[in-house]
Order: sequence, then C-alpha cells, then structure tokens
Amino acid sequence: MKNITIFGKGNMAKVIAERFTQAGNTVEMFGSKDPVGKIGDIVVLAVPYAAVATILEANKVELEGKIIVDITNPVNFGTMDGLLVKADSSVTEEFAQLAPKSSLVKGFNTNFAYTLGGDKNTTVLLASDDVNAKNTLVDSLNGSGLDIVDAGSLKRARELEAIGFLQITLAIREKISWMAGFTLTK
Amino acid sequence: MKNITIFGKGNMAKVIAERFTQAGNTVEMFGSKDPVGKIGDIVVLAVPYAAVATILEANKVELEGKIIVDITNPVNFGTMDGLLVKADSSVTEEFAQLAPKSSLVKGFNTNFAYTLGGDKNTTVLLASDDVNAKNTLVDSLNGSGLDIVDAGSLKRARELEAIGFLQITLAIREKISWMAGFTLTK
Repeated sequence: MKNITIFGKGNMAKVIAERFTQAGNTVEMFGSKDPVGKIGDIVVLAVPYAAVATILEANKVELEGKIIVDITNPVNFGTMDGLLVKADSSVTEEFAQLAPKSSLVKGFNTNFAYTLGGDKNTTVLLASDDVNAKNTLVDSLNGSGLDIVDAGSLKRARELEAIGFLQITLAIREKISWMAGFTLTK
Repeated sequence: MKNITIFGKGNMAKVIAERFTQAGNTVEMFGSKDPVGKIGDIVVLAVPYAAVATILEANKVELEGKIIVDITNPVNFGTMDGLLVKADSSVTEEFAQLAPKSSLVKGFNTNFAYTLGGDKNTTVLLASDDVNAKNTLVDSLNGSGLDIVDAGSLKRARELEAIGFLQITLAIREKISWMAGFTLTK
C-alpha cells in the first residue's frame, strides 16, 4: 500500500486515481488551484505538459526521493505535426533534468482515459532508468486490473511519446475513436 | 488488380506476397542475387534497411512513377538503443529523397511477420504524402483480410519507425512474443 499524490483533476487523473484506489492505495488529488499538502511515495503528473515544470519547481524539495510518473503528451496542437520537444529527447528526460533527485517514469501516456476506466484489461507501458521505481509501480497497481509492462529505460519515453502522439492524431483524424487506440498483445 | 514487385524473399516478403496474392494481385519476388525483371505498379522493399539504397540506385529509372512501400526498421542492433536515422527524420523520408519521382509509403514495419500470415485480422499502418498511393494500396489489399489504416503524411513514418523499434526491443527483452505486438483498436 502506497500513498499516491496526483496533480490534476481531469479525466486522466480520475481514472488513474481509481485504479490506484482499486489496488488498495490511498490517493490524494491536487487541482491547479489547490494548496499542495503532504506528497506521497508516488506522484502522478496528470496535468498538461505546459504545467509540469512549474509543479516540479514549486515542490522541488518535497519531490526528492519520490517516484514521479509523467503521463504527458507534449503535442504541438498548433501544427498537429509533431511534439514540443527536441527530436532526440523526450519531455520525461527533460523533466528528469529538472528533478534530478526524483525517479522519473513515463507512463499512461499511450492510454486514452476511457481505456483506463472501469474494469477494462488495459496495458500500461512504463519507461524509466529506475528499475525499483517500475517494480514499485507494478506492485502498487497489482489488483488494479491494469497490465503493467516495462518498456525499458527512460530513453524509451521517446517511443512512448511517439505512440501517444500518433494515437492522438489518429483519433483527431477519426481513424480511431477516443475509446480505443493502440493495445499490446503478448 | 495490380502487379506487385517484392524485393526480398524472407519471412516478411513471403507473408506480404501472400496477402497481395489473396487479394487477387500478381506478385513477383526478387532475391538479392536474382536479376531484376519488369517492375510492377507497387514495389515492396522487404529487405534489410542497409540494402535499400542500393536497390533504389540500381533501379532508378524503372522505379519512376511507382509506389514504393518501405517496410524497414532501421534498428541499431549494435546498441539496441535507437535507430540508424537522424532523430528528426525517418528512413522513408530519406528514401524519398533518393527516389524523388516515386511515391514512398511507409508500411508493414509495425507488424511482425507472424501477425501478417494466415487469416489473422491485422492492422497495417501506412504513412505517405501521396494520398492516391495509399488509396491504391487499400484497394489492392481489399480482400486480403488486412485492415489498412491511413496513419497520415510521410512524416508520420517517424512514429511508425518508433513503434516498430519499441516492438522489436519488447520482443528481444521477452516482454512480448514475436507472434504478438502492438495492435490498433478502433
């Protein structure tokens, strides 16, 4: 059982909170206007990409030693033709630079909110250099109904962000619905 | 009904040939040591990444006006940590530079050979700037049992290559089998 802090109160924040709760963890959610209370063992950044740096900066000390899960897709919604990140990097790698004493994990960004809701069997891909952090997430989501797959090192966040981006473009272009998307079969 | 030319005689070449044949097209396959005969309307490059440039160069004139489907995943097998292409590009975009009078399409690279074989319902993602070329491929694979999805412009080959790469790393790390992988639900 872990204490989970979720920044954000949107659709993604809610379904992720439900899954952690379902697995027996305690969850606290902070919206952008809420005062931030005690921060748990695992922190989920379920906010728009542009809001992350401010959160990392404002809670720098409290976030030290914590597992931080970055679920953002830094899509350039102006062009819908790429990401707001250098081509040879990922935003999660950039966030890791901003919070060097935390364990950054990319995850949930390849899942639409609907597929994380309810009791659907959904695969969540995690990328991180911290194997213990990934194992902690697997353990704390045991019983949530989610299938957690270790997608590799933090550098693999690049591919996870590519998948997240492509999936969003496919939904916007109505090739898939917002209730579907990429799934991983084993 | 189209005439299809496939460069390559490996597993991917064979299952792609089967699907085109199943849909009523004629298919001719050329191995690396075969003399190249008449080239069809649609050309599939089912060879390793490193062999593509030579094929494009050797058949420059014959390939003009043709649809060229690049299925390669330019994985750096030395490091298994990235692709052998500039981060802000894709090999298909580079091949398009080498064959400016042909219509380059990325496709089939997100599918393992097993999932393309038999009568499995498999989704194939295509990226190209040539909408007519993608429509021709959809038409010519109608009846093949494959579900062809337009993934967008040629630039989306970057994301398709990211998916192909991640999928290979997941199989090598035994997180998934070579008979599974990413699928797209609608």
